[in-house]
Amino acid sequence: MPEETVLYVCTTCRAEGDTSETRAGARLLAALRERLPEDTAGLRVEGVECLSVCKRPCSVAVASPGRWTYVYGDLDAEASAQTILAGIGLYAGTVDGIVPWRERPEAFRKGVVARIPPSPPVKEAGRP
Amino acid sequence: MPEETVLYVCTTCRAEGDTSETRAGARLLAALRERLPEDTAGLRVEGVECLSVCKRPCSVAVASPGRWTYVYGDLDAEASAQTILAGIGLYAGTVDGIVPWRERPEAFRKGVVARIPPSPPVKEAGRP
Repeated sequence: MPEETVLYVCTTCRAEGDTSETRAGARLLAALRERLPEDTAGLRVEGVECLSVCKRPCSVAVASPGRWTYVYGDLDAEASAQTILAGIGLYAGTVDGIVPWRERPEAFRKGVVARIPPSPPVKEAGRP
Repeated sequence: MPEETVLYVCTTCRAEGDTSETRAGARLLAALRERLPEDTAGLRVEGVECLSVCKRPCSVAVASPGRWTYVYGDLDAEASAQTILAGIGLYAGTVDGIVPWRERPEAFRKGVVARIPPSPPVKEAGRP
């Protein structure tokens, strides 16, 4: 069983021109929770007030001990939930969090905002 | 003594129009290492092949156990090293990694690319 993966969802993101009372980020969080499979062992979905990706709403981050952390933006409040969950599934199936480029959902290839190495770094795992 | 802070520096970043043999990211890493104080206890500076902030070179990330991780872009290979180290010093002096907005270096305010919550989340520290 892999370590727990956490999907952080920015609930402050507001889509351009969207005047809905419920912000796009909060709608994305709700859509993700609706589509979660019953067995969510190993995956936690958490709303966050701001991921500082304000220029590219909606945004999420995925993190897991020993794996690279990835941040994605340009996601759609309604249409992206299923894609995100599929992408997270691929991520959770890797050792280091790095899904081969061609296997990544297009929304992740185009929407990647940043990635951060695991701590301690994989390549230095043998060092004290 | 706070937990170790790690400053990741993307060595793949190439500044726009810069045809130097040594990439801007690698030059930024060298500049940071040159300017490190003698006592670097609690701070580790590490080159990383890519932080996936390719549209906003140069880029760095700062992470520390129990603190928010921050990613910054639009940094200058030669001019930003001192500012980055000053900003990291402020970061390392906080409990959760959140430096008050007005105290942050302008390069960090303008260049913020993303931030990721600490794991486990600070607000859930008391939960099982």
